Amino acid sequence: MPARYLSFRCSLPWLLLLLQTLLLLCSFLALPYTGDVYAPSSLYPEFQDVNHMVIFGFGFFLLVLRRYGFSSTGFNFLLVVLGVQCSVLLEDFLVFLRVQQSEAGMTSLAKAVVSMTAVVISSGAVLGKASPVQLIVMTLLELIFFYVSRCLNRTFLQVPEHLSLLHVHLFGAYFGLAVTSRFPEPPPGLDKGRSTPKSELFSMLGTVFVWVFWPSFNSMLADSKGEAVLNTYLALAVSAVCAFMLSALTSKDGKFRMPHIHSAVLAGGVTVSYTAHSIQHPWIAMILGLLGSVITILGSHCLQGCLNPALKLQDTSGVHFTFGLPAVLGAVASVVLCVVKRGIDNQWNDLSSLGYLAFVDIGAFCQTISTALLTGLITGLILNIKLLKAVHVSKYFDDQFYWEFPHLSVGF
Amino acid sequence: MPARYLSFRCSLPWLLLLLQTLLLLCSFLALPYTGDVYAPSSLYPEFQDVNHMVIFGFGFFLLVLRRYGFSSTGFNFLLVVLGVQCSVLLEDFLVFLRVQQSEAGMTSLAKAVVSMTAVVISSGAVLGKASPVQLIVMTLLELIFFYVSRCLNRTFLQVPEHLSLLHVHLFGAYFGLAVTSRFPEPPPGLDKGRSTPKSELFSMLGTVFVWVFWPSFNSMLADSKGEAVLNTYLALAVSAVCAFMLSALTSKDGKFRMPHIHSAVLAGGVTVSYTAHSIQHPWIAMILGLLGSVITILGSHCLQGCLNPALKLQDTSGVHFTFGLPAVLGAVASVVLCVVKRGIDNQWNDLSSLGYLAFVDIGAFCQTISTALLTGLITGLILNIKLLKAVHVSKYFDDQFYWEFPHLSVGF
Amino acid sequence: MPARYLSFRCSLPWLLLLLQTLLLLCSFLALPYTGDVYAPSSLYPEFQDVNHMVIFGFGFFLLVLRRYGFSSTGFNFLLVVLGVQCSVLLEDFLVFLRVQQSEAGMTSLAKAVVSMTAVVISSGAVLGKASPVQLIVMTLLELIFFYVSRCLNRTFLQVPEHLSLLHVHLFGAYFGLAVTSRFPEPPPGLDKGRSTPKSELFSMLGTVFVWVFWPSFNSMLADSKGEAVLNTYLALAVSAVCAFMLSALTSKDGKFRMPHIHSAVLAGGVTVSYTAHSIQHPWIAMILGLLGSVITILGSHCLQGCLNPALKLQDTSGVHFTFGLPAVLGAVASVVLCVVKRGIDNQWNDLSSLGYLAFVDIGAFCQTISTALLTGLITGLILNIKLLKAVHVSKYFDDQFYWEFPHLSVGF
Repeated sequence: MPARYLSFRCSLPWLLLLLQTLLLLCSFLALPYTGDVYAPSSLYPEFQDVNHMVIFGFGFFLLVLRRYGFSSTGFNFLLVVLGVQCSVLLEDFLVFLRVQQSEAGMTSLAKAVVSMTAVVISSGAVLGKASPVQLIVMTLLELIFFYVSRCLNRTFLQVPEHLSLLHVHLFGAYFGLAVTSRFPEPPPGLDKGRSTPKSELFSMLGTVFVWVFWPSFNSMLADSKGEAVLNTYLALAVSAVCAFMLSALTSKDGKFRMPHIHSAVLAGGVTVSYTAHSIQHPWIAMILGLLGSVITILGSHCLQGCLNPALKLQDTSGVHFTFGLPAVLGAVASVVLCVVKRGIDNQWNDLSSLGYLAFVDIGAFCQTISTALLTGLITGLILNIKLLKAVHVSKYFDDQFYWEFPHLSVGF
Repeated sequence: MPARYLSFRCSLPWLLLLLQTLLLLCSFLALPYTGDVYAPSSLYPEFQDVNHMVIFGFGFFLLVLRRYGFSSTGFNFLLVVLGVQCSVLLEDFLVFLRVQQSEAGMTSLAKAVVSMTAVVISSGAVLGKASPVQLIVMTLLELIFFYVSRCLNRTFLQVPEHLSLLHVHLFGAYFGLAVTSRFPEPPPGLDKGRSTPKSELFSMLGTVFVWVFWPSFNSMLADSKGEAVLNTYLALAVSAVCAFMLSALTSKDGKFRMPHIHSAVLAGGVTVSYTAHSIQHPWIAMILGLLGSVITILGSHCLQGCLNPALKLQDTSGVHFTFGLPAVLGAVASVVLCVVKRGIDNQWNDLSSLGYLAFVDIGAFCQTISTALLTGLITGLILNIKLLKAVHVSKYFDDQFYWEFPHLSVGF
Repeated sequence: MPARYLSFRCSLPWLLLLLQTLLLLCSFLALPYTGDVYAPSSLYPEFQDVNHMVIFGFGFFLLVLRRYGFSSTGFNFLLVVLGVQCSVLLEDFLVFLRVQQSEAGMTSLAKAVVSMTAVVISSGAVLGKASPVQLIVMTLLELIFFYVSRCLNRTFLQVPEHLSLLHVHLFGAYFGLAVTSRFPEPPPGLDKGRSTPKSELFSMLGTVFVWVFWPSFNSMLADSKGEAVLNTYLALAVSAVCAFMLSALTSKDGKFRMPHIHSAVLAGGVTVSYTAHSIQHPWIAMILGLLGSVITILGSHCLQGCLNPALKLQDTSGVHFTFGLPAVLGAVASVVLCVVKRGIDNQWNDLSSLGYLAFVDIGAFCQTISTALLTGLITGLILNIKLLKAVHVSKYFDDQFYWEFPHLSVGF
């Protein structure tokens, strides 16, 4: 298929060149409007953890497919470095529009890396199906839509800045699901989409890597970092124990299934992300971790058989169960905990204000999910127009389509 | 063997459920007794290093066996997340009994992760032989026995709190050896217990990973962190150089042997663990690193041929040489250095008090080793009762017994 | 070849023993002259990052060759731990000679690890060709020559201390090139020098690992750490995007080539290393990152075909393109930026002083390159004398020559 290769050659480098030039130009033009970019910041150690987690950890984490190792890590890396620049620029643009206050460069970079997590999660859903050109377009659109959703939350629904950023799992997962629903299904006998023991071992190591850095992720932008770290750690620990428990319970022969472990050990961290900084007792975080793990494994066990085929969803690395469901649970928990706390403080007197509070909180989460689904569908449609030259289904999950190999002997 | 699988299914998840429920209940009931769990703590960066080392580093480090990769990393992860919770609870229980003062949550978590290192080391000795149920029971028992040993040391033998925690290598190694002596031996021709070049490369990367974080481990709870970091780094560097030197000297053809490197590069860190915070001259730390490496390689070279067969020891990943012997050497060095320092301070006048001091110090180490051996033997007997359904020797070192595989083609 | 093995056995361990004894003796004798080695230092977190990067990251990064995995990581580790000790000793020696002021141990260790990067880079150029004995001799000579070059720069060319250390890429790359030019060429059909998809995946993960820690490397010893981190991150991000762009443009079929990505993503970090702390606008760092990536890929694409065969260069892991060319570009950029900044400050009045400034700056870089090339040639000649028993070309790139293997089935 030389024509196809040629077209790939014609589009991708020029798209990257165009974007990078634009980013450079904007960065140059933004010069007089940005504040003190180099203001001192004590954020570096946590930023380093999160950066490490997103670039190395998720690159490792996504190594599930048998013949897609180069692309999994390589494209994840490309998207993050490109997206972080775009995200910093969007922040600058908002400062220019006076929607937002100017910030130190390190804070801006930290927010950019957190925002990019949405894209990394979404790209897990279309893993192996989207070409780099499609992934780059998706990155740009998703970042813009996520900023819009955050602005709506902040402006109309009184979500504080750092919490609006933690909607990243919810947005990323449902955006990814909506995008992947617009992609043609791989043929059922396609062997390349499977994993091997070796690729699962790599992916397991990546999961453990991401697990270790999750407390830094949840606490980086929080006000009360100590609470956030401790609650996240406990929730993660409980959800990891439950992942092993439920995996042995739900599989035949009582053996562990790596995909279960893979998705459920992180569920606790996702579930407590909205509430980690405000939970006042360790056992609440532990119960949230437990519930997060339960919903992930039951979801993956029960729904994968009926919901996905019905909706024709092809969620390659299971982002719906790994990030979507625990984030929904976390949203519900956050509303309940907030209402209970306020209720106890007021001795359940001012019920109407409580109801309003709950309504606004629920509204914020619903807004995020619906914006994610809607803009994800639009993005999915855009990605599959002729111009972007979607990958043929027979070329799914294949490194050889994108990378030159030293020899022809490939595969894990 | 469906009956055996069924029994595995019947026991493990329920054991985990029971434990996790108990932990949650205790955490809930402990509510009014614990102090300010969320007290601020500046320990996070070091804690993160140690956590990373214990969960990711040791998971990687234990990847020595050909067909046991999933279980090595997976079970290590499960044991750590479960054990850390138990350990935090034990601390709370001691606070409740007024044996110990209440502490900030982060400090308590940091101590829990350090205590878990004992279990990780012991599980290295029974690697591939114990089923998850046995490992979990071992974890619980070992944590309790280690707490008892620490309490004895602290109460009767005047060992300071943070030093009592560093007995972790000594306790872990001899406990593991005693446990593994109660397991039936694998048949001599069992091919699965071997390593391959690939698994050794992984294990080497894991060793380097653990090596890098060792200074954080030794310094985390010390008073004089600067000294602890510097002395540990120098001791580690010298022991790494000696590991290469002795490996080439002791092997035939003068080639390096990976298992030597694997165990001896860490010896320096273990040897100085008791004294890293108090050594006043770099060269002392360097000599200790040198001696640690020498004792490890000579031990593994000379004794492996005669002692282990005589005692019927089957120490899968060589914890006796990697952690046991250097820890004994470190204990001796710590007594000698302490006596010499006091002697010089008093100009060798008060010899009787010096003798008492040495006696108490030696007593603490002997107490740790004998408690470890005794409780290890008891634990080994408990683990091999019928109820816990020990693994048949033909199923040793085999991932397929515990994990569902995507295909049947397994192995490194 | 038993005679050869025997000779390897006879030389290496004794060389290591001799060196380690010398280091211990010197450390003991240096006792009264060194200042307060254990002076407190806040450098530990950055030091940990850089240490992790040099030992684990570069060990991973060098895993390019098919049958040289053990040696790549193992020898890198050995050289670093040995070299760091030598480097600390050299610092002590300079203090003793009153050339330099006494420093806290941690600062001295941090400088030693940065200096070792020169050796790690040079060893990448002779990867697979030099025996451990040759590598150790090279390490010692290179460290001494690098110290001499730094002293010249500091004393006669007014280069500040921390900038003189960042000449490490320039020195390491050209020293390595000069050394490798004195080694006999491998036969053209030697299959062992190739890489496989698996080894390239490992190397890619290592590259990403090194990428993540590069901002810590550039900022560790700088005065204005915030600027250094931010500028390095942006330069790295831009160079990573450009690496993908140019790789697709220059390869046939428009596919990505892993060796391009491998070398060009780091180019940005190398390019800004001299200027990261002083750049006042993000777009300047971004443009430097862009240019660094361009020069690396164009260099590797154009020159590899004509320059290397002409000069008979065999640069195994491409250090000339990965570190040499971007460092030269960074040197030019640093002179230009410095002159422009001074020029604007003085409104271009004092042109003669500007010219003198540029002359001195250019002089420093030329001195580094020429010292590196000259001493590299000398070292290359020394390494190939009979006494050091060079490896026969048929044994190049082969782990089996240095390591005992569990079985005979080797290779990635």
